[in-house]
Amino acid sequence: MTTARKGERVAYFNGEIVPESEVKVPFRDRGFKYGDAVFDMTRTFGHKIFKLETHIKRFYDSLQYVDIDPGMSQEEMVAKSKEVLEANLHLLGPDDDFWVGQRVSRGVDLVGGDMWETAGGPNVIIECAPLPLKPRARLYKDGMDVLVPSVRRTPPEALSPRAKSHNYLNLIMADMEAKAQDPEAWAILLDTRGFLTEGIGSNIFTIKDGVIYTPQEQYVLGGISRETAIEMAERIDVPVVTKDIDLFDAMTADEIFLTSTSLCICGVRSFQGRQIGDGSAAGPITKALMNEYVDFVEYDWIGQYLKRLED
Amino acid sequence: MTTARKGERVAYFNGEIVPESEVKVPFRDRGFKYGDAVFDMTRTFGHKIFKLETHIKRFYDSLQYVDIDPGMSQEEMVAKSKEVLEANLHLLGPDDDFWVGQRVSRGVDLVGGDMWETAGGPNVIIECAPLPLKPRARLYKDGMDVLVPSVRRTPPEALSPRAKSHNYLNLIMADMEAKAQDPEAWAILLDTRGFLTEGIGSNIFTIKDGVIYTPQEQYVLGGISRETAIEMAERIDVPVVTKDIDLFDAMTADEIFLTSTSLCICGVRSFQGRQIGDGSAAGPITKALMNEYVDFVEYDWIGQYLKRLED
Amino acid sequence: MTTARKGERVAYFNGEIVPESEVKVPFRDRGFKYGDAVFDMTRTFGHKIFKLETHIKRFYDSLQYVDIDPGMSQEEMVAKSKEVLEANLHLLGPDDDFWVGQRVSRGVDLVGGDMWETAGGPNVIIECAPLPLKPRARLYKDGMDVLVPSVRRTPPEALSPRAKSHNYLNLIMADMEAKAQDPEAWAILLDTRGFLTEGIGSNIFTIKDGVIYTPQEQYVLGGISRETAIEMAERIDVPVVTKDIDLFDAMTADEIFLTSTSLCICGVRSFQGRQIGDGSAAGPITKALMNEYVDFVEYDWIGQYLKRLED
Amino acid sequence: MTTARKGERVAYFNGEIVPESEVKVPFRDRGFKYGDAVFDMTRTFGHKIFKLETHIKRFYDSLQYVDIDPGMSQEEMVAKSKEVLEANLHLLGPDDDFWVGQRVSRGVDLVGGDMWETAGGPNVIIECAPLPLKPRARLYKDGMDVLVPSVRRTPPEALSPRAKSHNYLNLIMADMEAKAQDPEAWAILLDTRGFLTEGIGSNIFTIKDGVIYTPQEQYVLGGISRETAIEMAERIDVPVVTKDIDLFDAMTADEIFLTSTSLCICGVRSFQGRQIGDGSAAGPITKALMNEYVDFVEYDWIGQYLKRLED
Amino acid sequence: MTTARKGERVAYFNGEIVPESEVKVPFRDRGFKYGDAVFDMTRTFGHKIFKLETHIKRFYDSLQYVDIDPGMSQEEMVAKSKEVLEANLHLLGPDDDFWVGQRVSRGVDLVGGDMWETAGGPNVIIECAPLPLKPRARLYKDGMDVLVPSVRRTPPEALSPRAKSHNYLNLIMADMEAKAQDPEAWAILLDTRGFLTEGIGSNIFTIKDGVIYTPQEQYVLGGISRETAIEMAERIDVPVVTKDIDLFDAMTADEIFLTSTSLCICGVRSFQGRQIGDGSAAGPITKALMNEYVDFVEYDWIGQYLKRLED
Amino acid sequence: MTTARKGERVAYFNGEIVPESEVKVPFRDRGFKYGDAVFDMTRTFGHKIFKLETHIKRFYDSLQYVDIDPGMSQEEMVAKSKEVLEANLHLLGPDDDFWVGQRVSRGVDLVGGDMWETAGGPNVIIECAPLPLKPRARLYKDGMDVLVPSVRRTPPEALSPRAKSHNYLNLIMADMEAKAQDPEAWAILLDTRGFLTEGIGSNIFTIKDGVIYTPQEQYVLGGISRETAIEMAERIDVPVVTKDIDLFDAMTADEIFLTSTSLCICGVRSFQGRQIGDGSAAGPITKALMNEYVDFVEYDWIGQYLKRLED
Repeated sequence: MTTARKGERVAYFNGEIVPESEVKVPFRDRGFKYGDAVFDMTRTFGHKIFKLETHIKRFYDSLQYVDIDPGMSQEEMVAKSKEVLEANLHLLGPDDDFWVGQRVSRGVDLVGGDMWETAGGPNVIIECAPLPLKPRARLYKDGMDVLVPSVRRTPPEALSPRAKSHNYLNLIMADMEAKAQDPEAWAILLDTRGFLTEGIGSNIFTIKDGVIYTPQEQYVLGGISRETAIEMAERIDVPVVTKDIDLFDAMTADEIFLTSTSLCICGVRSFQGRQIGDGSAAGPITKALMNEYVDFVEYDWIGQYLKRLED
Repeated sequence: MTTARKGERVAYFNGEIVPESEVKVPFRDRGFKYGDAVFDMTRTFGHKIFKLETHIKRFYDSLQYVDIDPGMSQEEMVAKSKEVLEANLHLLGPDDDFWVGQRVSRGVDLVGGDMWETAGGPNVIIECAPLPLKPRARLYKDGMDVLVPSVRRTPPEALSPRAKSHNYLNLIMADMEAKAQDPEAWAILLDTRGFLTEGIGSNIFTIKDGVIYTPQEQYVLGGISRETAIEMAERIDVPVVTKDIDLFDAMTADEIFLTSTSLCICGVRSFQGRQIGDGSAAGPITKALMNEYVDFVEYDWIGQYLKRLED
Repeated sequence: MTTARKGERVAYFNGEIVPESEVKVPFRDRGFKYGDAVFDMTRTFGHKIFKLETHIKRFYDSLQYVDIDPGMSQEEMVAKSKEVLEANLHLLGPDDDFWVGQRVSRGVDLVGGDMWETAGGPNVIIECAPLPLKPRARLYKDGMDVLVPSVRRTPPEALSPRAKSHNYLNLIMADMEAKAQDPEAWAILLDTRGFLTEGIGSNIFTIKDGVIYTPQEQYVLGGISRETAIEMAERIDVPVVTKDIDLFDAMTADEIFLTSTSLCICGVRSFQGRQIGDGSAAGPITKALMNEYVDFVEYDWIGQYLKRLED
Repeated sequence: MTTARKGERVAYFNGEIVPESEVKVPFRDRGFKYGDAVFDMTRTFGHKIFKLETHIKRFYDSLQYVDIDPGMSQEEMVAKSKEVLEANLHLLGPDDDFWVGQRVSRGVDLVGGDMWETAGGPNVIIECAPLPLKPRARLYKDGMDVLVPSVRRTPPEALSPRAKSHNYLNLIMADMEAKAQDPEAWAILLDTRGFLTEGIGSNIFTIKDGVIYTPQEQYVLGGISRETAIEMAERIDVPVVTKDIDLFDAMTADEIFLTSTSLCICGVRSFQGRQIGDGSAAGPITKALMNEYVDFVEYDWIGQYLKRLED
Repeated sequence: MTTARKGERVAYFNGEIVPESEVKVPFRDRGFKYGDAVFDMTRTFGHKIFKLETHIKRFYDSLQYVDIDPGMSQEEMVAKSKEVLEANLHLLGPDDDFWVGQRVSRGVDLVGGDMWETAGGPNVIIECAPLPLKPRARLYKDGMDVLVPSVRRTPPEALSPRAKSHNYLNLIMADMEAKAQDPEAWAILLDTRGFLTEGIGSNIFTIKDGVIYTPQEQYVLGGISRETAIEMAERIDVPVVTKDIDLFDAMTADEIFLTSTSLCICGVRSFQGRQIGDGSAAGPITKALMNEYVDFVEYDWIGQYLKRLED
Repeated sequence: MTTARKGERVAYFNGEIVPESEVKVPFRDRGFKYGDAVFDMTRTFGHKIFKLETHIKRFYDSLQYVDIDPGMSQEEMVAKSKEVLEANLHLLGPDDDFWVGQRVSRGVDLVGGDMWETAGGPNVIIECAPLPLKPRARLYKDGMDVLVPSVRRTPPEALSPRAKSHNYLNLIMADMEAKAQDPEAWAILLDTRGFLTEGIGSNIFTIKDGVIYTPQEQYVLGGISRETAIEMAERIDVPVVTKDIDLFDAMTADEIFLTSTSLCICGVRSFQGRQIGDGSAAGPITKALMNEYVDFVEYDWIGQYLKRLED
């Protein structure tokens, strides 16, 4: 192991903690060639890691689905993730937080071998990265703008959206459509039947007449933040129903919000160019959920974001 | 640039020719994280490169579809590909041949930036690799065994199969299903409507009553070898029809063959466990096409494969 | 019949030529209540009507599909259309032209009757309206911007897109999505399978490697202008293929153009935010088709549009 | 405002109460040209209006979906609806009742303007019409005959069935198929997946082994009568399940009934030519629901219908 | 072998020619239990068998698809079919003709064995039956009435419509729907996409502006009579296009006709309750095809049918 | 009635109890020709029949769906089934048990009649057959291997999977695919949307984190054993959820089991080539359900199967 340059983050790479700049994969790694890899990602709140075990459990479902054996138990993965976090915490400003992620690719294709022969085992990476607090701070003041692209989410019969894989091109093509119209918009895709699914790493919720709705898990990756938002709704006694949500639901919703690891919960002010509610950053139930979330993680991540507006 | 170890292949990497072992991508490269990259691949016949310009033209369609600018013209890409091949030819045995491939990823995600902010431009790689002649030699003696998995090909409304991207997990999940039943079988997927499409890098053709059929280009990546096979059919006056092909067509076909960059044309002896024709390695029209292909490229690639059976 | 105010257009309304301001339908007319009506529309070139008989023939197919008997033969409909045009021509400036349209609704619902009982027969309207030359003039200088909304075209198993009916809400919802992003964009919808169809009254064509492609008639209203564009292609010896066209085709096209009654042929400079060709108003084949169209109708409708830029 | 002829109903039309014969829309009104309008409809029971506020709330969801601003608050719409009813009540026989409906179209297309430019604001109509008690009376004595046409209900990805719009041609084409076989039959359409949806203004319920089933709201307009029927089931302690209902469910049902604004609840004696239950007008649970409905609205609408048989 | 009763037809049954009354299958025969059998059927014209070899070739494709080995070559099947016909010809009146059919089931399930274990080989039956000339005679005088049921044709991804199997329940359920409306109507099903397919043993053709259209072979069993009708069209120089045909095509067609083994070609006077053409038994092109068919088979089967009207 | 040979089972056949060898259907029986018949099947436990009335009730739903009148009441069908069982019980070894089944076909096609004319009424058969205990015994020791074929289950819009009909070719084609890969594997098909349905006579359940999942009844025949398994889960307090189950669910399941009349409940050790749980014959919840099932029927059917391993 080389010593990390001063101020450089370190990462776990196939058994060792090394400077991030040394974590490079050969170009014949199947993760690079085919996106033949899976990952997961949690975050810290006030430097404390959030639901790491739950994330790792979900990560191992993704691994099982694509049939990659990481060569480590879930417990080891948890322990190593904490170790990587510890090793990087000193780099984190007091108002900053980290994403903490795990990635495993199937390994490097053997030259001259046939499909599926790899040279050596899987490549395992555990990494930290500062959350993009500043570029997303505005969303908490103004609310998010959601666009629905024409591209449809890959159906489960082709590849399950429930595995968090390195195959994001479907989501990327969709996001490019949205960004071409509005560089700050977030894309939420429809499934092949025409119902709302998810965006890149984000889940969607609509609220109508005091009931919260979110798409069925079959067509989306059921994020841990989505799960946490549902728990928060229980805590404030607002019913949550999972069902197929169509454009009519969204366009006539009282409130809409997204969840993601970094965003936790963030309000939506416009959907496909239509104002939602009174167009403010977040409706009353959304706000209540956000506050409950802050209480739950014992950290004011909303304030953390908003503070960056002044930077 | 470091000097390549004796016997080590070199590759083009972002402007330079370097030893392959130096072609590594940072783990935050979007090609690795998301499969956000495209590639193309041709081969040499007797050390001479095949239809390179046609491949590069198709490659730039893939690039345009995913909206990645490689920072090089098609002409430069052709020139650099030839240069890489030249630099590696001395490593090639007289009976061996190379795959020659180009890969471009969108670049490395900027830490702390938002989605789509990259640190630096695309990563461009041009590489050579010896063809897997030995592991595939048996197919020319015995014929291929094709299995149809339950997983369906990603539909064009989610991601076009016509872009040769780094998102192969749909094809990989399908191939794993087939390989679990028979490690030497090749998977050919159905589309979401139930018609035959393609396998990992291979196209399928069926023959019935003297007419050759192959799936429409909308649902498959129309390989250059597929195109060449169609040209060969014209040369021997056998009509080719592109249409939706179902299991009935395949199960009652007189002959079936696959095409791919490495295989060129290879006969299928069984389809989904059913013997095709008399179960020999290739039917009469398939053989005629293969021979015409040999004439066309002025190289006996069939003999090249078969010779490896004796190794 | 009342006398039309000076400068007021007249229209045919159930047997009479009356001032347009008198052509009002009772609010229980099924055309108003249900969109239970069909129409067709041609234009004049230099005050001469274009392919009127062909339009009327198509109109009667629409009428037959919805099973409305207009109580007039095709010949009478042609004659009356010409009469209406004649009666309005004096209102047309030398550089202006008219849309000439026919509309027939099933009639007025009988109060107290059951579904399908009407009070009196169908309402028949034949009308003229000046073409929107000025608002569309810019498109010939700059090219059109096409957006693909998330809303999908109603499938033929629900209602055939080939009948030109008064049910446009599907197209309107789609166009609203596009206009919300860019008020000057034109929406082209995908069908429920993900292939390009049409916009409000417009057909789309893509060009790649010297071949023109346009969607199959099953999923679109095959406009007379579409048909004329195909004839122009024959005249300049460019092959036209009707087939399923996907986003890959459009995003990698060399040229794209739309046709419609008013536009005839108009080039597309961007598609879903992506520049097409060199981003100019029309590519070389599109331009050739447009010029051929001018020759064919013996009227410089391109100049007619462009002249309005100076207004 | 003109005075209404003796015995003529009046209606609200863009701010005024006028005789119905004066409520006419220009033929370029988008409601007429495109069905670009929405409506809602309730009825009176014994001259008292039913759930008006609920209807108006639903009406404003339809307006929001199609993005038409009626220029009136929900409260004003309620007040004006009552005013129109009041003004017409004197015309109603003691055993008659009214439909009370609201319609808003986007307005009149501007001649010479481009798509979406309107001349003036929306056209707002509030109207009354006597219920078709006599033509439907027989249904309460004999039961309804339901036919399933081949035409499928427009899918939500094209246009939401949940908005009560002026685009009824899909439902009309379906009803024409049914009426061609049996002029007294009612059509209930399948969705594009093959499950039961709705007819023109009617919802369907099946009963099997003491449980009531009705299609999910995603694929139908959830009528207020449907909602009321569900409330009645709660009152008599019969469980109601919303789920996909197929032909097997319907053909093996113990009872079937329809709901609509005018019908409230009406039994089905045959479904697609098959007798339901013992072929009587209504099964035991259906009858219990109907009686409960009578109690709930405090008016014997069943008797009201049956009395007309004697006319 | 028992002697057939006087006037009793004989049939081939597993190697022997026996009286029809002895051709009974054990109730555990998989043809009976599962419809696990295939068949084919041709007819005689003036006692001469029609295209027997072509039918048998198609029959062996069906056998291959379901993977049943009849234990006989195609040549033997042809020879035995002729033998059965010969043995029955003496029973045929001069104006009558036979259906000649072949049926092979997979055999009898072994009691106590597992799925797929059979006791003995396949059951092979070759039979003759007089054509239902009298009940169908009216169709040639009046034309056929076609109804489109709500049930959709089984899609190729579930079971190919191209294998003529003993699984007809999908077609039967559809035909029951039609017969419930009109006992003399013939059902033609839509496929799951909404395009016309076929009825029980019949194919459909539409004619518009001098071109004949018929559905693609993927979604229908391409009957030999369908093929013959296409040949007749070539002989009279009318173009035939195979394509997806929707309700719009059918409802606006100039002519429609069906083909089947027994009917050869028969005109359609109404489609889904709509009159086709002038409502006569057959349009001009249909009549020309019928006459050409008579010439081709050198037998006036039209007269044969019509003669029965006088019975 | 003939006397049954010593040791020969008897069966009910159209009113009489006869030796099984006399239960033969004419080859023109519609059950044989078209699979135009329905059936049901229960079993005995320790020679006592299981839930016969429930099976017969379901049987009559199937009959109603295909509109066949068996000419017997449910009570008679129950009584006759018991009678047939009684008459055969003496043939059953102490450790053996019977399937007891009912089959009704629509009857024999009338020669010379038109479609739907039958000669005589339905054919009614009630039969017993020893369970295949020995060939399936291994499954209780080792667990089952489930394969998912490429063929998709016939969708409800074509033919309801909920009617237990004689049309099994879709299931047979699927099972052949599986058996071609592994003669001992059991096929479970996906529906046309890509979700798990059922196999030939078997239902599937997955278990994850202490919750049991099974597909919705719309897409499968809801077996009585499936229903019983759900009751057993209630008895041991494990929640059961019916929902769409995809390959991700199955591949990441903790346990999987199948139910069928003969198997009752049997564990799955591998799914599509992937080991489930620790690869043992049955997971802990599956075992608990099996034991509960034994208690419920008061017969150790597990021991009954396992005993046969020693034969």
